[in-house]
This record gives sequence, structure tokens and C-alpha cells, in this order.
Amino acid sequence: MMNKEQAQIRMNPEDRPPVTVVGLGPMGRALAGAFLRGGHPVTVWNRTAGKAGELVAQGAFLADSLTAAISASPLVIVCVLDYHVVRTLLGPEAQALGGRTLVNLTADTPSRSREMAAWAAGYGIDYLDGAIMTPTPTIGSPAAVVLYSGPEAVYEASRPALAAIGGSASYLGTDPGRAAAYDVALLDVFWTAMSGYTHALALARAERIAPREFAAYAKGIAAILPDIMEYMAAFVEEGHHPGDASNLNSAAAGMDHIIQASEDHGMEAGVMKAARALVQRALDAGHGNDGFSWLTGLLEKDSV
Amino acid sequence: MMNKEQAQIRMNPEDRPPVTVVGLGPMGRALAGAFLRGGHPVTVWNRTAGKAGELVAQGAFLADSLTAAISASPLVIVCVLDYHVVRTLLGPEAQALGGRTLVNLTADTPSRSREMAAWAAGYGIDYLDGAIMTPTPTIGSPAAVVLYSGPEAVYEASRPALAAIGGSASYLGTDPGRAAAYDVALLDVFWTAMSGYTHALALARAERIAPREFAAYAKGIAAILPDIMEYMAAFVEEGHHPGDASNLNSAAAGMDHIIQASEDHGMEAGVMKAARALVQRALDAGHGNDGFSWLTGLLEKDSV
Repeated sequence: MMNKEQAQIRMNPEDRPPVTVVGLGPMGRALAGAFLRGGHPVTVWNRTAGKAGELVAQGAFLADSLTAAISASPLVIVCVLDYHVVRTLLGPEAQALGGRTLVNLTADTPSRSREMAAWAAGYGIDYLDGAIMTPTPTIGSPAAVVLYSGPEAVYEASRPALAAIGGSASYLGTDPGRAAAYDVALLDVFWTAMSGYTHALALARAERIAPREFAAYAKGIAAILPDIMEYMAAFVEEGHHPGDASNLNSAAAGMDHIIQASEDHGMEAGVMKAARALVQRALDAGHGNDGFSWLTGLLEKDSV
Repeated sequence: MMNKEQAQIRMNPEDRPPVTVVGLGPMGRALAGAFLRGGHPVTVWNRTAGKAGELVAQGAFLADSLTAAISASPLVIVCVLDYHVVRTLLGPEAQALGGRTLVNLTADTPSRSREMAAWAAGYGIDYLDGAIMTPTPTIGSPAAVVLYSGPEAVYEASRPALAAIGGSASYLGTDPGRAAAYDVALLDVFWTAMSGYTHALALARAERIAPREFAAYAKGIAAILPDIMEYMAAFVEEGHHPGDASNLNSAAAGMDHIIQASEDHGMEAGVMKAARALVQRALDAGHGNDGFSWLTGLLEKDSV
């Protein structure tokens, strides 16, 4: 039975436009759930069946084909594994998508986002590229962070509906690749840090330090990162890499201790060895007394 | 000219025991400065001359030999590049150190800390192993974090003097390697994260995102780490690695995007490739639907 609030929503569909969500992995399901809670009529579709049960129980409509799903809404959200899957799914649906807005929240590279935008433009599809920066449980809550790029008019028109995703949305400009550029660079920080933490938990356990005991201190390391990020960014902008507080020589020594301690326990240290190899290039170039931020220029030089 | 407070301190040297600081790199200088500000008579020594000028101007005594420096204080702090340097410097000074307290704030591996403690015990040196977890500017301020391990009686006796280093001190137990174990595992998190951030700044620049503009978002990534660290530690303790919010398959896809985006700009991605290789081992073992914390067990298994 519908309660009064739900009845009002159903009776005012013009206020909450229908939304189609393509892809029902953990993030797709979270998005569809947020649109449902936001009062939107929601149509869902997934390549493999059986993932829509809970959403259908909450009021979503499960389309029996992708074409039908797209046809149900002026706004189509796609969130799948990567752009290869997006192209495989939506390539044959270009005609159905024409005249609609496609918001691609699938993660991939900036250049693939630009290719996808060019493809969409060719079929008269209003295309917005987005990157979700926070985990699934944040979706629909104030903690969600989503970045968008693409035509400003498309962003402004979609904004009221996208508000159901919650939290803060940032519009990063007309270059459709910009959201993906932030995404890959931010995930570069995230997945590297996660890899280091996973390894650190294993190294701590080998030293008989319990994971939760270790986490209490590791959170202290996370807490000092924001300040360091800020001043390192300033050093990179200024092209000035002071090593008076900490330099690449001492970073190399610290990294060697981590590698040695890992090997003392027969544990692989591939990530740290790769990081150490980059520092070695700085030492070999005579920059041992410079600060760690000097490495950014070394990586950029490769890319010239 | 001395102000009243300084004069009082100078007149009550018995309240603030003399401290010797061996090693005047950035951290050694910060430590000597903190002891001076704490009112301790401070003797300093460094392998190479010319680093003590400012400390001497602040009242430190520059010893003309390491033996003289050690003989000047019941408490000797050593903070140099690594334990190889400690052994090279202090090996010939074992007799001079006998009956004194040696607090080794040099970073190295847990096993080398235990070796050093055994060496000190052989000469009747009261030995405490410490790890400084915060950067030089924090030393002597409330933000400093230092970990200690070794005989509890030695820690308790040294504690009032060590308070001059500031901030919070944690005593981690009698195993002299425990402070170093925390140190290497925490620095594993830190240097991996720093390597990822350095690479991310370069990738962002290649995508024409200015470093400070990027840092504002990167700080948001740092802010979500503490919660993730806590629940990942719990998953590792429980041996349960849920992949319902995010799994190793999606981590692999995200890492591939970072590697591809780097290579699109001709930029090396050695750290991320090493992290991706570890994830591949999990996928090959059929654990793609498990959470990222599953990797800790994989690393530990290697170490059995």
C-alpha cells in the first residue's frame, strides 16, 4: 500500500522526471535506490538478470530490454565496469538515446570520455560525463561526492534530478574528459594508499601487531596527509622543492627499511620497490637533498 | 641577554638533566632545539662540522669529540640516517656509553633494533628504541608523535626529559623492536601514499589540472581514509572480506584506467603497475568478488 507521500510523488511525475539506470552492480543499485528515494519514477536494466529484486520491491520498473529501458526516461544514467562495456551496451542503442540525456557515471580514462562524448554528439545525445568519488554507502546521502563535465546547459538541465544522488556535485567545465581526469588522478592517490595500507597491515601482523591496534596509529598518518598535500602542491606550482625538513635521501633510507623489514619476513614489497626505484632516479640525478615533491617534475619530464 | 625565565632554568640544571644529541641532520637539529627550549643543558656532535651554528647561538655546547659529547650527559639521543651509521659512530664508544641511557631515535628495521638492544645490553648501556612519526617542524610542539620500546624502567626514568620533544609519546612495550615495527609499517602507508600523490600531481598536470586545484580534491581522498582503515583492519582481524560495496574486480578496473591514462601521456606508472600485479594474483586465485582487504592475507601467506 502506498503512503500519502508516495501517492503525491506518483501523482506529480512532472516534478520528478523519470530516470533510467543502466547497470546494477553495487554502484548502479545504490544510484537507482537514491533516485527512488528522491521520488523519481525509476526504470532499471542490467545485462544479467537477478540484480533488480530489491529495487523492484521498492518501486522500480524492470525493463525487459535495454531499448525499452532507455525509451522510458528522458534521463539515462549508465554505471558499469568501464567504457568498453558502455560501448558494447549502448552502441546499438544510439537511435533510442537520440534527444535524451545520457549521464555516464562509469569510470574510465579522460581520453575515452572525450571519445564517448564525440560519439554521443554524432547521434544528438546530450552527454554528461561524471565520476563518483565516494563509496556506494554514501550515495543519496550528504557524504556523496560526484564530479561532472560536459556542456554546461546539459549539466544545468540535469542538475535537479542529479541532486537525488546527494552530497556535493562539482561541475568541472565543458571538456568532457575533465571529470575522468580528476577521477584517475584522485584514484591514483586512493589505490596507491590502499595498497600501502594493505601491505602495512600484513607487515604489522608479521611483527605481531594486531590490525585494529595498528589502524589506530595509521589513522594518524592519514590525518597528516592533507597538510602535506597542500604544501607539496604549492612546491610543484612554484617549481621549488625544499629538502630542509625531509629530503629524498631520507625517503630512500626509510623505503629501504620497509623493503628490508618485509624481506625479513619473506614478504613481497613490489609497490615499495617501484616507489624506491623512482626515488633512485632522483638520487642518480643528484637531487638527494631536494624534497619529495621533486619527483613530480621527473614524472612529468617523461611525459613531454 | 637572558630573560628571567632563561636565568631560572640555567640556575636549576638539576631539574633538567643534561642531554647529548648525536647527529645534526634536520631531525637531530630539531631535537636539540627542543631540548634547549625545554631548559636542558644540551651538548651536540655531528660527523661533519658546520651544522651546529644556530644551536650553539641558542646555548648548545658543541663537543670536540664524540667521546666528550657522550661524557657530558647521562642521556644520549642519537638520530642519524640509519643503524649502520649508529653502529659506525657508537661502536667505538661502547665504554663511554656504559651506565648511561642511549635513546636511539634513528629509523631502521625491527630486527636491527633488537640487535642494537642486544649490543647495548652487552655493555651495560640502558637502551631505548624510539621512532619519530611526525615531521621535523612538529618537534617540541603538541603535534609531535614519538613511539618508544625497551625496558619499562628505562622509559620511565627518561620520560621527564623526553617530554621536551613534545606532543604525545607512546610506550609500546619491552620488545625493543616494537617501535621500529610500528615505524616501518606506518611509513609503508606514508611513503606509498606520498608516491601515489606525487604521481597523481604529475598526471593531473598532464591533464592541465593545476596542482593546488587538484590538492583541494585530494584532501577529500585523505579524509575518507581513516574510516576505511578502521573497517579494513576489522575485516583482516575477522578474516572476512566483503566485496559488496567495492571488490577486487572493480579495483583492478580502476587501476587499469590510471595506468592507461598515465601511458596516454607517456608517463611511467611503476607503482600502480606493482599494485595492479598484486590484485591480479587475487583475481587469478578466484577472489575478484572479495574486498580489497583480502590482499593482506595474500601478502601474509607469502611470509609463512
